[in-house]
Amino acid sequence: MQSLRDSIHRNILVEDWALDLLDTREMQRLRRIRQLGTAFLVYPGANHTRFEHALGAYKLAGDAARALALSPDDARHLQAAALLHDVGHGPFSHLFEEVVPGQKHEEFSVDLVQWSGLNDLLKRAGLEPKRVASLLRGKGEHGSVVSGDIDVDRMDYLVRDAHYTGLRVSVDPERLLSVMTLRDGEFLVREEGVTACESLLVARFLMYPSVYFHHTCRAGESMLVRAAQDLLENGYHYDSLRVMDDTEFLSALKQGSRYARDVAERIDDRRLFKRAFEGTHRRVQGDAFLESVVRDPAERAKLEKELADAAGLNDGYVLVDVPAPPLVREVGAKVLGKDDRILPLREASTLVRTLVAAQMDHGKFWVFAPKESLPAVTRALERIASPQKVKPTPHMGAG
Amino acid sequence: MQSLRDSIHRNILVEDWALDLLDTREMQRLRRIRQLGTAFLVYPGANHTRFEHALGAYKLAGDAARALALSPDDARHLQAAALLHDVGHGPFSHLFEEVVPGQKHEEFSVDLVQWSGLNDLLKRAGLEPKRVASLLRGKGEHGSVVSGDIDVDRMDYLVRDAHYTGLRVSVDPERLLSVMTLRDGEFLVREEGVTACESLLVARFLMYPSVYFHHTCRAGESMLVRAAQDLLENGYHYDSLRVMDDTEFLSALKQGSRYARDVAERIDDRRLFKRAFEGTHRRVQGDAFLESVVRDPAERAKLEKELADAAGLNDGYVLVDVPAPPLVREVGAKVLGKDDRILPLREASTLVRTLVAAQMDHGKFWVFAPKESLPAVTRALERIASPQKVKPTPHMGAG
Amino acid sequence: MQSLRDSIHRNILVEDWALDLLDTREMQRLRRIRQLGTAFLVYPGANHTRFEHALGAYKLAGDAARALALSPDDARHLQAAALLHDVGHGPFSHLFEEVVPGQKHEEFSVDLVQWSGLNDLLKRAGLEPKRVASLLRGKGEHGSVVSGDIDVDRMDYLVRDAHYTGLRVSVDPERLLSVMTLRDGEFLVREEGVTACESLLVARFLMYPSVYFHHTCRAGESMLVRAAQDLLENGYHYDSLRVMDDTEFLSALKQGSRYARDVAERIDDRRLFKRAFEGTHRRVQGDAFLESVVRDPAERAKLEKELADAAGLNDGYVLVDVPAPPLVREVGAKVLGKDDRILPLREASTLVRTLVAAQMDHGKFWVFAPKESLPAVTRALERIASPQKVKPTPHMGAG
Amino acid sequence: MQSLRDSIHRNILVEDWALDLLDTREMQRLRRIRQLGTAFLVYPGANHTRFEHALGAYKLAGDAARALALSPDDARHLQAAALLHDVGHGPFSHLFEEVVPGQKHEEFSVDLVQWSGLNDLLKRAGLEPKRVASLLRGKGEHGSVVSGDIDVDRMDYLVRDAHYTGLRVSVDPERLLSVMTLRDGEFLVREEGVTACESLLVARFLMYPSVYFHHTCRAGESMLVRAAQDLLENGYHYDSLRVMDDTEFLSALKQGSRYARDVAERIDDRRLFKRAFEGTHRRVQGDAFLESVVRDPAERAKLEKELADAAGLNDGYVLVDVPAPPLVREVGAKVLGKDDRILPLREASTLVRTLVAAQMDHGKFWVFAPKESLPAVTRALERIASPQKVKPTPHMGAG
Repeated sequence: MQSLRDSIHRNILVEDWALDLLDTREMQRLRRIRQLGTAFLVYPGANHTRFEHALGAYKLAGDAARALALSPDDARHLQAAALLHDVGHGPFSHLFEEVVPGQKHEEFSVDLVQWSGLNDLLKRAGLEPKRVASLLRGKGEHGSVVSGDIDVDRMDYLVRDAHYTGLRVSVDPERLLSVMTLRDGEFLVREEGVTACESLLVARFLMYPSVYFHHTCRAGESMLVRAAQDLLENGYHYDSLRVMDDTEFLSALKQGSRYARDVAERIDDRRLFKRAFEGTHRRVQGDAFLESVVRDPAERAKLEKELADAAGLNDGYVLVDVPAPPLVREVGAKVLGKDDRILPLREASTLVRTLVAAQMDHGKFWVFAPKESLPAVTRALERIASPQKVKPTPHMGAG
Repeated sequence: MQSLRDSIHRNILVEDWALDLLDTREMQRLRRIRQLGTAFLVYPGANHTRFEHALGAYKLAGDAARALALSPDDARHLQAAALLHDVGHGPFSHLFEEVVPGQKHEEFSVDLVQWSGLNDLLKRAGLEPKRVASLLRGKGEHGSVVSGDIDVDRMDYLVRDAHYTGLRVSVDPERLLSVMTLRDGEFLVREEGVTACESLLVARFLMYPSVYFHHTCRAGESMLVRAAQDLLENGYHYDSLRVMDDTEFLSALKQGSRYARDVAERIDDRRLFKRAFEGTHRRVQGDAFLESVVRDPAERAKLEKELADAAGLNDGYVLVDVPAPPLVREVGAKVLGKDDRILPLREASTLVRTLVAAQMDHGKFWVFAPKESLPAVTRALERIASPQKVKPTPHMGAG
Repeated sequence: MQSLRDSIHRNILVEDWALDLLDTREMQRLRRIRQLGTAFLVYPGANHTRFEHALGAYKLAGDAARALALSPDDARHLQAAALLHDVGHGPFSHLFEEVVPGQKHEEFSVDLVQWSGLNDLLKRAGLEPKRVASLLRGKGEHGSVVSGDIDVDRMDYLVRDAHYTGLRVSVDPERLLSVMTLRDGEFLVREEGVTACESLLVARFLMYPSVYFHHTCRAGESMLVRAAQDLLENGYHYDSLRVMDDTEFLSALKQGSRYARDVAERIDDRRLFKRAFEGTHRRVQGDAFLESVVRDPAERAKLEKELADAAGLNDGYVLVDVPAPPLVREVGAKVLGKDDRILPLREASTLVRTLVAAQMDHGKFWVFAPKESLPAVTRALERIASPQKVKPTPHMGAG
Repeated sequence: MQSLRDSIHRNILVEDWALDLLDTREMQRLRRIRQLGTAFLVYPGANHTRFEHALGAYKLAGDAARALALSPDDARHLQAAALLHDVGHGPFSHLFEEVVPGQKHEEFSVDLVQWSGLNDLLKRAGLEPKRVASLLRGKGEHGSVVSGDIDVDRMDYLVRDAHYTGLRVSVDPERLLSVMTLRDGEFLVREEGVTACESLLVARFLMYPSVYFHHTCRAGESMLVRAAQDLLENGYHYDSLRVMDDTEFLSALKQGSRYARDVAERIDDRRLFKRAFEGTHRRVQGDAFLESVVRDPAERAKLEKELADAAGLNDGYVLVDVPAPPLVREVGAKVLGKDDRILPLREASTLVRTLVAAQMDHGKFWVFAPKESLPAVTRALERIASPQKVKPTPHMGAG
């Protein structure tokens, strides 16, 4: 048993079997993977890593187990799953999931739990790797505690991301855990906890425009995603990229094509692409051209090419970035009423219901290009797109 | 110039003229008036006073003046108004405004600025009392900075109330001040500040169920309001009550009628009335009886009497409490777009728009009675009211 | 079981038997007793009460019990003692212990545990009042956890006092509890925890000049102590004063002699006596006159009288205040070495050893008098005392 | 003017000329240099960078300029110096200064200000690079504000380092700035600020055992220093290493000798050397052998070789680490008394005086070796050194 210091939870007591897991190369690698991808380019303090977050999730899983009065065995499985839930993340965390759509880190975490040295260590600790893997997928008896609509994962990361970006959020994990309960193995909110859940959802809602969908973060992410795709086209195998850490990935870029090298240096020197256009999903409705760009990756690629040609730029220097619209998954949480009925959180809370509608405001997409090419790209865009809709963004150049 | 310590803003530099104002009996009295009325009965730390809040508002007014590049003279008037804005509060702050409906503390603050010793001190400091009074009413050139839809008053109290109750809120006054601007004397939010405003509104929204409309706080408030009315009926003049502080008011109760004395002792010992019924404005719709109770004070008084009679209780031992529904005034704030148009915050933000609807969830009302009489009161209520609507509250007795 | 909000520990889970104790008149009274006496006159936020502190100590006692793996029965006794340890405090906490020297609040706490309704409630909860009383005295098997050189009491109040005054301290109760251990029933620091203890001691050391011995706090305390003595001389019985809360005590003063009334009003309006002289124990050495004043209460009384006469003031308007010199009791803590030897903290830490010497710097004493009489009192003091030592304090009038 | 988010100071307003400086490659590089070298190996959150610290120092320099009422021109020079003061740091900050003794980052900062593109940008902003360089050296009229015994540099880093390691410190920069003053161009503490300074010194004092001299941090640092020396012996030029960032340096190691590569991988996987011995400067006195090791680098090298030979280890696998003893430079600060005399802080404060003595407790040195070789190294050490002094450290293997 050892006490580790954490900026969020202050002192985290880590049991010996968990220390053994932490000491593996797989977990130590998480020290070199930034929790928030490129957010450090906007928030200078956002250098926190998946390693700390894993520790924090382990800690909250222990608190949850105590609050729910789980057996020691159930508690340990829960904590192991929380500790390992992100071990499959690629460089820059979620950024890497955009390189090849459909590849999710959860499945790689499951792989590592089953096939790497972690498997042996789990067994030696008296834990069943299969059960841990099942928890990672949100399945099994307490799966929703570790990976559900409201789980220890997001309780930790919301507070942690806010702490390191310097934002203030109203999330209180301890309070949340005190209003959660188990019913038939499912992690539910007791009626008196609806306000605490509203706090959590609002916190997440407000993180979208401030961090996850901040245009500067997105510019950096788009550039790195494209550069990663460039590596794949030039001989790198997906799996060899995925197991890299942030710095290995940047090194690989620096030794790659001219484009990859340029992106890596631009990230280092913070010479990011800027916004030539910013649109929102909401306002797009009714504009056939924009709707097709938003919906269809092939249309996006076509537009990128046309704009680059028109502005005399090489491939990869105009990026049309349409991230998946924000999805506050927590709205799916369930509430256990005083009358013992279970109802969806969105029925119990008008606020939650309306958040679902409001989050479309945050569904944005962009055209990014190098600063010096903005005028040319914008002119081309106005020509190609429906003129009444696509105006030079008022932010232009201010990016 | 002196530096005063504050739990929220840490060090507040107070100029000499402001120290002179602080040293008056009128301002020192605020040390003995709790900021949050009876909230200390639920949140043991909520003993903070109007005095600290006045200091905090003074501090933020100075920050605002700097951010808006006001002249030193304008800045001082603004800070004086912020410092004095609550000097007219009666005992237990807003609670006292419910004793005689329509009597607002702002007008008493204006009175004191114009007719008490504060008037002379302001003049001696080179300030015009009339201008300060006008700012207190939210009028004049910078009135909305001190008393508007988003003003330094609420920036301070939201953070302060959260700090002392132990809640977490996402309000960041410094950030807010950095996104506000003046246009034709009006305090506006710049477009990039919409998210910061959403944070503020959500914080206030969430404070309603947790603090302002917490049923236990309301029980204490109803009891004290009724006991104050009892004093007025027994010879006290309104003005002599209003200038009391919390402890003088409780002393007066202890020397008043049997009822007043009992209320004071119940507050001291925390033997509060409990909920016999809890309804929400939303659910009331369509129930003629409840609608009339909610709308008409005379109906409320009638119901109180009927229930008391039926339960064999004296006057004042059944209280029907229908507080004014929550009103997030901040939704009236205005946004200055990048295209220089001014539009209401609720148009710029879907979240704000939906909060207006959602806040009806928090519009509650109650029937309170002594714990031991709850069964009798509840039975009477079921008999009198429409039986399908008024059921014994599931919280009964748990209050 | 109920979760109470606290500004320091955020959520405190309180068991039913402890809720019953909290609901007594004896414990509710602590809501009306300020933790830090007159410190609110300097730190506007320092309105926190013994009630919150009792809850905090209860919480930390639970944490300690868990860390030390105590039996449920031992844990409950420990928590009960922590909850009740200050129930015997008089108005304004420690201030009242100066009214009649030698009367300590601990003994009154013990009395209440044994003879008030608390006794019955403890028994009903399956707890032995005698054992709780013994813990209150720091005796018995785990007495030093609740009242020792480093105990849960001071872990809570150091953090709490800093929080409400707006000071920053480096105390981390959770960390401290993780380095403490039990050996033969005694609460010891493990060797690796010496730095954590140094932090605690330094925090306390720095609180003396900033809070406990701040001259303005002391001026207020001296005035109230003298006014309390005035009440005793005019018919009040000690025990009837002691059981008052802060506001009852101020009410009693307002109905007392002209002097008592004046003091109460001066506290309300913050028209405090000011420093006519400030000396330190250290610098006094070698000055026979000052040494006698510091050592001998009779000499102090004589000096007060002479100065008042010379300045034409009534009795009680010159106060010679010589508080007991600071005593960082924590230096007595014991360290359990890795080699299993037990040695005093002051041997294990050079810092602690030197703090003992350094704290004499904070050993101050004062002559206080009304502002307008400072020149006369100072002149008289220079005449009476050895002229080379007693100079008008450079702070004069700035108090 | 732009507002940047910071975890410590929340919102930092950065003027345009400072944004231009931030946008240089030289300053952006600081994003990739950890503030605390290898402390992240002990404190998982300690990933903060010199970049944030530079911003924080810039912010506090602005606050200081305002508090001291400097002219706008003086203020800008001060802020520029604060922003650039660490631009000359090598990889892993202070760690790199140990690679070649005597090479200090301050001089490289001065070089960059005078000869890199920063020079032009400063001039374009109307600033004199020479004056900025002089401030960096703590010279000139306000040099001590930026680089003195108590300066904005350490006000920022103490709070920042504590924040990211999860420690609690009592430093309050705002309070400190409010008690500092200028006299003949020197940055002095006003008498009333002695307690605030004591807080600062104690905070720094306590950071030594917890962070700067934590044995695990030192193990990592020793390994990296030795590996860097290995690169220098194998063809790298000092200047080409110095301008690297943390990741470039680790990459260089991975492409270096077998030893360098092994060290880099051990850091990545956290397979650090462990303590074979831990001594303190204080206890060494009187032991001729240890004294010579502590004093004489040649003796250290000899001992390393002997131990490695005895344990059958290659060069670089036994490290004798004797860091420069802690030096709380702040004790040199000066106090401006109310009587206008200037006296050294250590005369004004017994605590400060005694800290100087106490800090010898923290003066430690170590013998580090791979975990599996600890028994062999310890046996050899016992044989070589004076047997009564050098005992196997009780921590052995626990490192």
